[in-house]
Amino acid sequence: MNNLVLAAIEKYNMISTGDRVVVALSGGADSVSLLDALCSLKEKYNLTIYAAHLNHNLRGEEAERDENFCKILCKNYEVELFIKSIDIHTLANEQKISEELCGRNERYKFFDELSVRLNAKIATAHSASDNAETLIYNIARGSSVRGLSAIPPKRGRIIRPLIEVSRAQIEEYCKQKGLAFVTDSTNLTDDYTRNRIRHSVMGTLRDINPQLEQSVSQLSESAREVTDYLNKQAQAALDKCKTQFGFSCKMLLQLDTAVLKHSLVLLCERTAKLTPEHRHIELMIKILNNGGAVNLSSKFIAVSKQGIFRIISVNDNEEFKPVSVSENFSINYNGKIYSITKQNSNKENKNSVSIDSIDKGAVFRTRKEGDKFTYPQRKVTKPLRKVLNEMKIPSEQRDNLLVLAIYNTILWCENIGVSEDGKNDSDKELNIKIESEV
Amino acid sequence: MNNLVLAAIEKYNMISTGDRVVVALSGGADSVSLLDALCSLKEKYNLTIYAAHLNHNLRGEEAERDENFCKILCKNYEVELFIKSIDIHTLANEQKISEELCGRNERYKFFDELSVRLNAKIATAHSASDNAETLIYNIARGSSVRGLSAIPPKRGRIIRPLIEVSRAQIEEYCKQKGLAFVTDSTNLTDDYTRNRIRHSVMGTLRDINPQLEQSVSQLSESAREVTDYLNKQAQAALDKCKTQFGFSCKMLLQLDTAVLKHSLVLLCERTAKLTPEHRHIELMIKILNNGGAVNLSSKFIAVSKQGIFRIISVNDNEEFKPVSVSENFSINYNGKIYSITKQNSNKENKNSVSIDSIDKGAVFRTRKEGDKFTYPQRKVTKPLRKVLNEMKIPSEQRDNLLVLAIYNTILWCENIGVSEDGKNDSDKELNIKIESEV
Repeated sequence: MNNLVLAAIEKYNMISTGDRVVVALSGGADSVSLLDALCSLKEKYNLTIYAAHLNHNLRGEEAERDENFCKILCKNYEVELFIKSIDIHTLANEQKISEELCGRNERYKFFDELSVRLNAKIATAHSASDNAETLIYNIARGSSVRGLSAIPPKRGRIIRPLIEVSRAQIEEYCKQKGLAFVTDSTNLTDDYTRNRIRHSVMGTLRDINPQLEQSVSQLSESAREVTDYLNKQAQAALDKCKTQFGFSCKMLLQLDTAVLKHSLVLLCERTAKLTPEHRHIELMIKILNNGGAVNLSSKFIAVSKQGIFRIISVNDNEEFKPVSVSENFSINYNGKIYSITKQNSNKENKNSVSIDSIDKGAVFRTRKEGDKFTYPQRKVTKPLRKVLNEMKIPSEQRDNLLVLAIYNTILWCENIGVSEDGKNDSDKELNIKIESEV
Repeated sequence: MNNLVLAAIEKYNMISTGDRVVVALSGGADSVSLLDALCSLKEKYNLTIYAAHLNHNLRGEEAERDENFCKILCKNYEVELFIKSIDIHTLANEQKISEELCGRNERYKFFDELSVRLNAKIATAHSASDNAETLIYNIARGSSVRGLSAIPPKRGRIIRPLIEVSRAQIEEYCKQKGLAFVTDSTNLTDDYTRNRIRHSVMGTLRDINPQLEQSVSQLSESAREVTDYLNKQAQAALDKCKTQFGFSCKMLLQLDTAVLKHSLVLLCERTAKLTPEHRHIELMIKILNNGGAVNLSSKFIAVSKQGIFRIISVNDNEEFKPVSVSENFSINYNGKIYSITKQNSNKENKNSVSIDSIDKGAVFRTRKEGDKFTYPQRKVTKPLRKVLNEMKIPSEQRDNLLVLAIYNTILWCENIGVSEDGKNDSDKELNIKIESEV
């Protein structure tokens, strides 16, 4: 087994010399083997190893037994053990979630705290068998190629050195090395479906291929590589298709189908913080061709209009409260950061506003009826509504634009720039910069 | 069901107006539904529909019953039925293969013959359930992302209009339309493993997601799109990395992992006509970095030497028999086509040889000890061995090169060109062109 662990550590670059690692220790065969395997690599990598055990207090005496077992185990390995005890049953009831989910949340919270406090990585004992079960489970629930990545070998500070070792190999390792372990109580709290996959489905598949876990690990690896590549290509495609107010439908439709779909997923995840369903993707491709809108959630819609595609937040009456302008401040609104800085004058910059506006009581706000804008060159004054029309700014975006105004007089408007009234006439100015939050 | 069939036909462009379609008809629920669904689309697409039934003679009276059932069915639909009767049991024994495999081979042979004779497409009744079972089966046996494409909706002249319809939906369709069918004898000949996947695994997964087949169809679709895209990118990468004698290791290693692996798969499939195993791919990447060789099969090895990667056939003593040169002939050797044509003289072409060589009795052969080559410009004569050395032609490729020679005198050598002795001095010449067979 140690060869497989070492191979995975090297392949996925899990450990560097001098690392500090916290082993997530339940006391079950998987985590005991993990602790043993990492301790045997202590010298090779000059590791400092800790262990962490969360007592879920779910099974009375069994929970006590597990905690005590971990204490003795760590003493034998001369590993510092951190224990936390939480009444998961009560907490889950309070939070109205399942005990399984609550337990997982609290475990990862505890590990994260320790990771920060000790400046250490967290090693969890997920095995190739866990990965295979997750992959089949994901397929059953409906997964894209991306979902086949299943359990990542490494994510942030979390590493999974057993990810290419099967449960049978772990059990064999315990037997060979005479390692004692307790029955992992998390197995018992696994839900009914998981257990049926573990016992009935996996058994049948292992009859077809005794090396099932290894084969599935290879599939997961291949899915991760393909996903990484598609992410890169989709990002490049989005950069290329970007226009001032969204993305060019024509250019998006010229992409290969795999890249187009992946780009739409990325866009939804970033803009609307949601993973679109298969039917949403199909519908988005439809509106790229024919125009229209798709409801992605109660808060976001995808819109295709005049050859431009964008994902916009539905205006749910959350109004922007006017704020007085001041030097060096920044505000957050609608996924964008507006920052104001004092700078030397630069007449070319259409987002530079006279510093006098502070004294004159200008405010940042969204547009309202009666707003008037004077073109800086032509010196013609028009209702802001007409100006936005002439600039072809999409109607659903107009209510989300910020303006800088004194009463009805617009000094500056987002996407349009400074007006005649806001123009700078000293050698200092306010510069308004707008950045996307993501 | 008909909506799903129509959607799949349109999505995958299965049928064009005026098509002739042969329905592969076993008499089971799937193929009876397929026949019924296609007949209902007869007018819409102006179709000519035929049916084909292979009597496997495997189950005595049951086989007769199925054949008769198909006859009556086709009479009702006014569809011409082609029947072939084969003793699969005896044939499988003769060919030493399973009855299942033999039956499949003979079915497709029969369908292919009809397809050519009638200039028709072949419609098979594979369903979304068959696709889901195949996908799970492929995962169990060890599959890359490509294997998740499972059963393609369209391949050559074969179309599968039921590929997005589940078996439950097909059964419901039969019930609603009062369609009679026989128990499909191919189900019964399915092997033990298939049946366990169909009944035990699929049942559990369908408990998790009643829309299992639809979800898996979407995964297959996504895998096909990703595979198409990777094929395209890998082909472009291979074109870019190609050098005179193979592929640049350095340039291959700069590719994204997913593209690199896919390129190696393409290369093996085309050059060695085999799909490399996961470990072969890993080893090939290793030798790209460090040099070396990988045995791909008993006939092919991958070699990385002096920064060049190539797949070469192991020289299994299959000698090239010398042939006399003549006008307008072509020969096949070692995956390449050598063609000789008479042309007007072009002194620039290093593969143009004096037309006199025909009369002088020149032959095409591989090199042998004692071969001598005279450089055309320098007029220095050297052993061919030394010339190949100077040209840095990899040693393992030298025995596969063809030369044009009179006794020991080389007139022309592949990759080097014409010698002083072969040079053209009339206004006609022989032009030797070498193309890759694939």
